[in-house]
Amino acid sequence: MNKLARIISNSNSIAITSHIDPDGDSIGSMLALWSALRQKCRNVEAFIDDVLPRKYDFLPQSKYVKKYKDVEGKDFDLFFALDCGNKARLGHGAEAMENSKIVVNIDHHISNTEFGDINIIDINSSSTCEMIYSIIKDMGLIIDKQIATCIYVGIVTDSGNFMYDNVTEKTHLIVADLMKTDIAKQDIIYNLYQKKSINSLRFLGYSLTNMDVELGGRLAIFQISSDLLKKFNIPGDDVESLVNYGRDIEGIDIAVTMMEKGDNKVKLSFRSKHDDIDVRALAQLFNGGGHKKASGAMLNSTLDEARNQVIEKAKQFVRR
Amino acid sequence: MNKLARIISNSNSIAITSHIDPDGDSIGSMLALWSALRQKCRNVEAFIDDVLPRKYDFLPQSKYVKKYKDVEGKDFDLFFALDCGNKARLGHGAEAMENSKIVVNIDHHISNTEFGDINIIDINSSSTCEMIYSIIKDMGLIIDKQIATCIYVGIVTDSGNFMYDNVTEKTHLIVADLMKTDIAKQDIIYNLYQKKSINSLRFLGYSLTNMDVELGGRLAIFQISSDLLKKFNIPGDDVESLVNYGRDIEGIDIAVTMMEKGDNKVKLSFRSKHDDIDVRALAQLFNGGGHKKASGAMLNSTLDEARNQVIEKAKQFVRR
Repeated sequence: MNKLARIISNSNSIAITSHIDPDGDSIGSMLALWSALRQKCRNVEAFIDDVLPRKYDFLPQSKYVKKYKDVEGKDFDLFFALDCGNKARLGHGAEAMENSKIVVNIDHHISNTEFGDINIIDINSSSTCEMIYSIIKDMGLIIDKQIATCIYVGIVTDSGNFMYDNVTEKTHLIVADLMKTDIAKQDIIYNLYQKKSINSLRFLGYSLTNMDVELGGRLAIFQISSDLLKKFNIPGDDVESLVNYGRDIEGIDIAVTMMEKGDNKVKLSFRSKHDDIDVRALAQLFNGGGHKKASGAMLNSTLDEARNQVIEKAKQFVRR
Repeated sequence: MNKLARIISNSNSIAITSHIDPDGDSIGSMLALWSALRQKCRNVEAFIDDVLPRKYDFLPQSKYVKKYKDVEGKDFDLFFALDCGNKARLGHGAEAMENSKIVVNIDHHISNTEFGDINIIDINSSSTCEMIYSIIKDMGLIIDKQIATCIYVGIVTDSGNFMYDNVTEKTHLIVADLMKTDIAKQDIIYNLYQKKSINSLRFLGYSLTNMDVELGGRLAIFQISSDLLKKFNIPGDDVESLVNYGRDIEGIDIAVTMMEKGDNKVKLSFRSKHDDIDVRALAQLFNGGGHKKASGAMLNSTLDEARNQVIEKAKQFVRR
């Protein structure tokens, strides 16, 4: 029995959580680990300090994900923080963490601050789900179809459908193994990518038509006001993939979406496609973080101020 | 030695070709097989009856691909037709085939007419490249980095980045094996997907804004006149992925692009995402073909006539 399996065996209550602003990898890893640990221990809770995007409702275990307030005040023997670079990304979940005896921090972000008692960080992993696959296997637990489905969702969404450079031979071997459980791949793809609203497509059309290019063709900017989001009546979730369209233009080094989040807040999402363009470093100038080629930050400013600041700070990052 | 290896050993001249309107799988499979056979035989020619899209220039072997006129009149002992559902898809290459002693037809299209002397058809394969991988391995030839690159290109482009239902455990195992050769995956992805022109993005924006929905939200139509293509000044190649955006809308059963090809011709591309919506059967009504969820046809008509015909014929294919 490995160390983690031993700790789990000695724990009477276990919490599993992940970051605010949930995505496929945070939800997938949380639900996969939750399902696996339930094979050994009934007292396992999965919770987040956020709303689960409806897109993931198709995951059968998703209905068991609790909200922070449901676990507030509870003490846990063991606390898993998944796919979280730092404590702040847990939202109020950080408070539940403080009340726990042992914290296990499992993540693949290079920016991880190693805030756990046990830190399992693999920056060469495509996703936290890829790590969870190995962790479940190493503990001798079974990866059934439902667990495989969750892991597959995390790998696919966090690797840009196997396109990002975090995808390795191991990633494909894991997916081959997941497919042995007969996961309903087409259903998964349908739920993740093929249920877009017409408004979401029209929004994409509008945004591409109005995309702005600065710094001599090196910086692509999408500016998204709350009014625009309201006009197309789409959730913020649908905006996420927009920035990739800017990245994929020849000559563009950095693409950024600036999304107005009410109340003088702007959410920045950066993308790069070249090894020498480090948008994590750029995001850090705005107190954000993430990966080298995909990062983000939250600003207290108007859209126009954000735009000026980003152009100014991006100058030193783009190629000449 | 297997049968195919024996035939190759007994052949003094070998031709390898693929379909007109080349794509990643036709070019990838042709170049992979060409490179592999060159390990045994110097007299191997790869040719197509078309222009190689510039997008594939990054493949190091692409400069060795000849045009049909370069091989016109030659007799070959052995002739490989790859990724071709029928003779017509070879263009003038069909004439070179008639002059060849043995024709080997390797393909994964369900519509394949088995026009070869030897027909190796696997409709459960993600791509012809996936088949070529196994064929090369079975012959005991080596898959080096360059061959692996070509095979990877074919698999990735023909499987919609591993999303289509032709992707199996085997597909991922093959890709894992290809990655052992240290292929420059990010360079490949960059060349395939991240060198888009701004015009191409603006064209996408325009097309999404003007996309048309018929049959009660079941049919998405993109109508592309020659004037529009001229206005955005983009190659027809850039239009290819447009139809997928229509497919990926909730409720849409069939998406179609209708592209004016000068001179009273319209190229139709159909997509579906559901097992029970067979766009190959729809394309056959226009004398076209392809796969169940991705098919095409060429019409002699104006754009408006094409539109009316497609709406009329699609009626019996969409859900009620």
